[in-house]
Amino acid sequence: MELHKKIKGKISIGQRAEIKDIKDLSMLYTPGVARPSEDIKKNPELVYDLTIKRNTVAVVTDGTRVLGLGDIGPEAALPVMEGKALIMKQFADLDAFPICLKCRSAEEIVEVVKCIEPVFGAINLEDIETPKVFEIEEKLIEELNIPVFHDDQHGTAIVTLAGLINALKLVEKKKEKIKVGIVGAGSAGYAIAKLLSAYGIEHMVVFDSKGAIGKHRKDLPKYKQNIADITNKDNFTGGIKDFMEADVIIGASSPGTIPEETIRNMNMDSIVFAMANPIPEISEEQAKEWGVEIFGTGRSDWKNQINNAVCFPGFLRALLDLRIVKITDEIKIAAAEGIANTLTEKELSKDKIVPDVFDERVVGNIKKAIESAI
Amino acid sequence: MELHKKIKGKISIGQRAEIKDIKDLSMLYTPGVARPSEDIKKNPELVYDLTIKRNTVAVVTDGTRVLGLGDIGPEAALPVMEGKALIMKQFADLDAFPICLKCRSAEEIVEVVKCIEPVFGAINLEDIETPKVFEIEEKLIEELNIPVFHDDQHGTAIVTLAGLINALKLVEKKKEKIKVGIVGAGSAGYAIAKLLSAYGIEHMVVFDSKGAIGKHRKDLPKYKQNIADITNKDNFTGGIKDFMEADVIIGASSPGTIPEETIRNMNMDSIVFAMANPIPEISEEQAKEWGVEIFGTGRSDWKNQINNAVCFPGFLRALLDLRIVKITDEIKIAAAEGIANTLTEKELSKDKIVPDVFDERVVGNIKKAIESAI
Repeated sequence: MELHKKIKGKISIGQRAEIKDIKDLSMLYTPGVARPSEDIKKNPELVYDLTIKRNTVAVVTDGTRVLGLGDIGPEAALPVMEGKALIMKQFADLDAFPICLKCRSAEEIVEVVKCIEPVFGAINLEDIETPKVFEIEEKLIEELNIPVFHDDQHGTAIVTLAGLINALKLVEKKKEKIKVGIVGAGSAGYAIAKLLSAYGIEHMVVFDSKGAIGKHRKDLPKYKQNIADITNKDNFTGGIKDFMEADVIIGASSPGTIPEETIRNMNMDSIVFAMANPIPEISEEQAKEWGVEIFGTGRSDWKNQINNAVCFPGFLRALLDLRIVKITDEIKIAAAEGIANTLTEKELSKDKIVPDVFDERVVGNIKKAIESAI
Repeated sequence: MELHKKIKGKISIGQRAEIKDIKDLSMLYTPGVARPSEDIKKNPELVYDLTIKRNTVAVVTDGTRVLGLGDIGPEAALPVMEGKALIMKQFADLDAFPICLKCRSAEEIVEVVKCIEPVFGAINLEDIETPKVFEIEEKLIEELNIPVFHDDQHGTAIVTLAGLINALKLVEKKKEKIKVGIVGAGSAGYAIAKLLSAYGIEHMVVFDSKGAIGKHRKDLPKYKQNIADITNKDNFTGGIKDFMEADVIIGASSPGTIPEETIRNMNMDSIVFAMANPIPEISEEQAKEWGVEIFGTGRSDWKNQINNAVCFPGFLRALLDLRIVKITDEIKIAAAEGIANTLTEKELSKDKIVPDVFDERVVGNIKKAIESAI
C-alpha cells in the first residue's frame, strides 16, 4: 500500500521527441505538424506510420467485475487497468492506456469504443461482467477495424491450452482420446471450452451450478447454448460429482466446487488446473493427497502458474505488429503452441508446464508462432 | 517530415514503477492491486492519491477544425493532438492523452466524454468546429466533475489579455478608456471578447463578415447574441472599415480582413494583434508602414508571438494541482496577469510584451496567480 501511495499511479506519458527550441516546436507542433496530418488525410493507412496508433492499446473496462472484488466501478478499477498497462509496457513495449467507463449498458459501451477507435491499434476488454461482455465483444468485432481481445476469456484460454499441450506431452496422452471436465461457465470457462474444442478435444463436458451443460438443458442463455452445441457429445446429464474417469479437470469457478470423489476417480496421470482467483478450487495439498499427477493454479506462489500475463503482452504485440484485425481460433491455438514450445524438452517437467511471466522468450515465440499460422 | 516518419508518433507510455520480479508483480498487479482498488471504492476521493487521474488530461477532438486544415477527421488530427500532449509533458509535466473521436454530433461527443471521465483530471477540447464546440463545452461544464478547458477559445483569450495588459502598461492607457475592435467571431474572437469584457474593457466592438455585432443585428445565432449583449454599448452599426480612432485592434480572422484605413485612423500609440494562423491579417511590414506602435501575431518567427502554448501547459497544471472544477473569469484573468507579470520591467518592451514559450517561469507564475485569486 505504501508503494501505491508513493508512486501515485503506475504509468505516465513519455516523450518520443524533445522540444528544445523554437525550431523543434515548429516541427513537432504548428506549422510542421500539418504535414503528417495532410498525408494521413490523403492516405488513411499512413496513420500507422506517423502516429502512436501503431503501438497503442486501449484497456477498456466498466469496473463491473474486477478481480475478486466484483462491481467496484470505473474509478476503483483504474489501479488494476494501470497495472495491466504497466505489464504490457514492461514485457512487450506496448503503449496501453486505461479507458474506465462510467456507462454501463452494452450498447453505450460499444458506442463509446467505436467513437474512440481512431487512436488505438487494438482494444483489450477487461473485467466487464458476463454475459454483457460477450455481447460487447461480438458487436465490437463486427464493427471495428482493429482487433478486439477479451483477456479474461481468450488470454486465460490460451494459457490454459498451452499448459494442457505440455501436460499431455508429459503423460503421453492424445487430445482426441482424453476426457475433459470444465467446472465454471463464466468468461474463462466459456472461452476455454470453445478453444479446447477448436483445438480438437472431442470428449468434454462443461458444468455450471446446475450441472452438466448439454442438449438436455432447457434453461440455457445464448452463450451457454453455444457450449451445449460444441461439447458434451455423449449427453452426460449428471453433476460434477458424478463425472468419473476424467483425464483432465479444469476449474474456472470458485473454491469448493470440485468434489473429492471426482478427483479421486480420475484416470491415471490425471491433470487438474484449479484456476479460481485468488483461492483455487482445491489446494496443492489436497491435489497431491487425492492423487493428481499434474497440478496448476493461477497463484504465483505455487508451481505451474497458469497466468494470463504469460500470454497477453506477447499476444497483443503480435496483433499490432502483424496488423491482425480478426482473432481466429487458429491464431489463438498458434499462440498457445508458441507459449508451450518455449520450454525446451529439458526444462519441461510436471512442475513446470508453462514458462513463467518473466521468461523473455515468450513474447517473440508467440509472435513467431502466429506469423507462421496466418 | 523525416522526423515524423522516424519517431512514429510523439508520445509513449512511461512506467512509474518497474516489475523486476514476482514480488513486484504481485504488488503492482494481482493480488496487491486489490488494496488501492478497495480503498477507492470505499473513499472515491482517493482516486486522486492512488491513480494517474491526478495528473492526466484528455485532449479531445473530432478533427473537424484542425489548424488551418479544416475538417480532416480524427485520424489525421492525431499528429496535432500528440503534439499538444508532447508540449504539455515538456513544459508542465502533465500526462495528456489524445482522444480523437469518430462521432460528430455534439450529443454523441458529450456522451463519450462523460463516459471516459473517470480516468482524467481535466478535459482539453481541441480543434472542434464552431458553433458545435460551444454547445459541447457548455454541456460538459454542466455535467462533469472535472474542469473542461477549450484552448482555442480560452487559451487564446488568456494570452491575448496577457499581451494587452503589458501593451497598455507601455503606452500608459487605462483599460476603462480604450476603444477596442475585434475582427472575427469564431472560437477565439468570441472568447477574447468575453474575457476582455470581464476584465473591464468598456468600449469594444466585435465584427463578423456582416459587420459590427450589436443589438441592431437580427440574424445572430445564440453565441453571437452573447457578444451583442456584452459589447458595443454605443450600438455602432458600420463595418470594420468605418471603425475609426481605435486604440486596439485584434484580428482573430483571416488575411485581408483588417483594412488599411482602419489601421491608419487608429489613435496614437496603437496596438494591433493580428492572430490569423498561419498567415496574419496584416504583415509586420504593413503594420509598421501604417503606423502601428505595438504589433503582435501568432507567428514564432516575428516579435511578440501571442501563442496559446505560453498558457495551456501552466493553466492545466494549475487546474489539476489546485483541483479547480469550474474555470471562472477570475481564474482566466489571474492567469493572464501571471503571464504578463512574468516579464520584469526591464524585460518588457514594445518588441517583447509576452514571455516566450520556453520561459520556465511561466508555468509556476500562472499557478501562483490563480492560487491567489481563488
